[in-house]
Amino acid sequence: MPDLRVAIVGVTGAVGRQFLTLLEQRGFPLADLVPMASARSAGQTVQLGGREYQIQEAAADAFAAVDLAFFCANTQVSRELAPQAVARGAVVIDKSNAFRMDPAVPLVVPEVNPNDIHQHQGIIASPNCSTIQMVVALEPIRRRAGLKRIVVSTYQAVSGSGLLALQELISQSRAILEGQAVEPVVYPHQIAFNVLPHIDTIGADGYSGEEMKMVRETRKIMGDEHIEIAATTVRVPVLYGHSESIWIETEEKVTASQARQILMEAGVKVLDDPSGNQYPLAINCAGSDDVCVGRIREDLDRPNGLLMWVVADNLRKGAATNAIQIAEYMLAKGLLPA
Amino acid sequence: MPDLRVAIVGVTGAVGRQFLTLLEQRGFPLADLVPMASARSAGQTVQLGGREYQIQEAAADAFAAVDLAFFCANTQVSRELAPQAVARGAVVIDKSNAFRMDPAVPLVVPEVNPNDIHQHQGIIASPNCSTIQMVVALEPIRRRAGLKRIVVSTYQAVSGSGLLALQELISQSRAILEGQAVEPVVYPHQIAFNVLPHIDTIGADGYSGEEMKMVRETRKIMGDEHIEIAATTVRVPVLYGHSESIWIETEEKVTASQARQILMEAGVKVLDDPSGNQYPLAINCAGSDDVCVGRIREDLDRPNGLLMWVVADNLRKGAATNAIQIAEYMLAKGLLPA
Repeated sequence: MPDLRVAIVGVTGAVGRQFLTLLEQRGFPLADLVPMASARSAGQTVQLGGREYQIQEAAADAFAAVDLAFFCANTQVSRELAPQAVARGAVVIDKSNAFRMDPAVPLVVPEVNPNDIHQHQGIIASPNCSTIQMVVALEPIRRRAGLKRIVVSTYQAVSGSGLLALQELISQSRAILEGQAVEPVVYPHQIAFNVLPHIDTIGADGYSGEEMKMVRETRKIMGDEHIEIAATTVRVPVLYGHSESIWIETEEKVTASQARQILMEAGVKVLDDPSGNQYPLAINCAGSDDVCVGRIREDLDRPNGLLMWVVADNLRKGAATNAIQIAEYMLAKGLLPA
Repeated sequence: MPDLRVAIVGVTGAVGRQFLTLLEQRGFPLADLVPMASARSAGQTVQLGGREYQIQEAAADAFAAVDLAFFCANTQVSRELAPQAVARGAVVIDKSNAFRMDPAVPLVVPEVNPNDIHQHQGIIASPNCSTIQMVVALEPIRRRAGLKRIVVSTYQAVSGSGLLALQELISQSRAILEGQAVEPVVYPHQIAFNVLPHIDTIGADGYSGEEMKMVRETRKIMGDEHIEIAATTVRVPVLYGHSESIWIETEEKVTASQARQILMEAGVKVLDDPSGNQYPLAINCAGSDDVCVGRIREDLDRPNGLLMWVVADNLRKGAATNAIQIAEYMLAKGLLPA
């Protein structure tokens, strides 16, 4: 395997830190690491594999010697710098929303549509966290039985909003336990001991940006514009790990036990013994790369209806792990420069 | 209006305390109060309207002079003592699960099926908290446009499990913030900074007791066994106020703005200006008797699909308020002894 010069753009953020951990854990073949962040963090250092690397300011020329760049800063940074990185010869795997719906950019979950990677023109997009875990859980069932409709409600951890949101949940929780008033900063309302049916901007049609990501991205990844998707995305006072309550209607009948079998065979982690109190939990899935599925049960009225509960670590499989898996696939297929 | 001798069975619990507050706030015509609880609490006192009342042990003979008994202890207590209270001439309004699905017992939400009260034979059941707020929000739409199907996911506060659960969330939150280990007692897993897709016992078909309550009770209250209902009930680390993400399919098309109008005309509180960050929140609905609805939007694919977010105080409208409203209806109709 070639040794790559790898950039992480946004290395100081919640997802950036996960990239450092995961590149080391997975033994990713690094010749050099170029950690990048805003000017404010430039000059600080990060560690990987016992070596220290100095953070550079994210800027076009910093990509001159980069083979592969993981972007996990914000959409604005990706929009500006990802094309510059590509122009300098790097392949970009982008976690942001900047290019996901661009028809020229593959949007990839390796368990679902790895072949789309081959069409890339320099940028490959990694989907939204809530989309990734849903399509990993649903694709094996879709392949076997077709998929007509999804109704999904999410229970999303604050780490999806970054490090400041983690601090906000912790400091608000502490204040409330001490009987003090709280002042929301990251979120429009108190998140501690509350749930917010509001992630991303809400449009005139009443749907939030996060909900529309789940709709559009799922259709693009699965390559089927006809799947009906109704999403409600909700922030909950959890630190790490998104949970999703999913109802689907398939083309053909799938029993609950068939669904468990199909998912296990596809490598999805099935944790489904509710009488023994076994089902996926955010606190247990945090720190893991698995997509965990439980509470699988058949609709009581619709022969082709199925319900399930899907949990994954939003910073790992929902972000850094998925991006690294895309890079690993490219390495295995010889799609990255040696 | 007649002045009634009123018992509250389970007066020391989370719902029992709400009854004391609400009977006073609503100026319920009390001649006497007979607070009851387990033997352990007998002899203690409670206050209502500036008077002090001594708690009696809940037992058959304690109902001898009672006109109206609110039961808010557990199912076992209701099963044993409610028929005894009726035999001694009391009307029972029961919050427990003991009689809800008994064909001889009306199951009533006054905004939906007040007329069912007239058929009572001594006991009137008040539904499960998660059912009450859902049917209040859906009944006005059902009357206008018919209701074929509901897919609902809940975000339920710990106060629904009683006072010990409130303490457990608070003590676990404190422990985690201080870096200490937690030992679940009330719930099978940690509830602080986590969500549990498990309320009540989960049966062999994969559905929890709470989910089946939403299915069966909704059909009984609405008087329509054909409504398809798929429910996922989830406990979240919130103290007071249940939230619900609801997707429905109606017989006839209802636009989002029509739905807002229909709900407002029916007396449901509509809080739906997401661009101004206005939508129902558990922390705001706690302490109120309203059922609050927001995030109303049309399904993107199904002409007759509608989504909404419904929040209410589970101890008030979800429990004590609904029971008192049943009693108030009976008073207004002359159905209680003078």
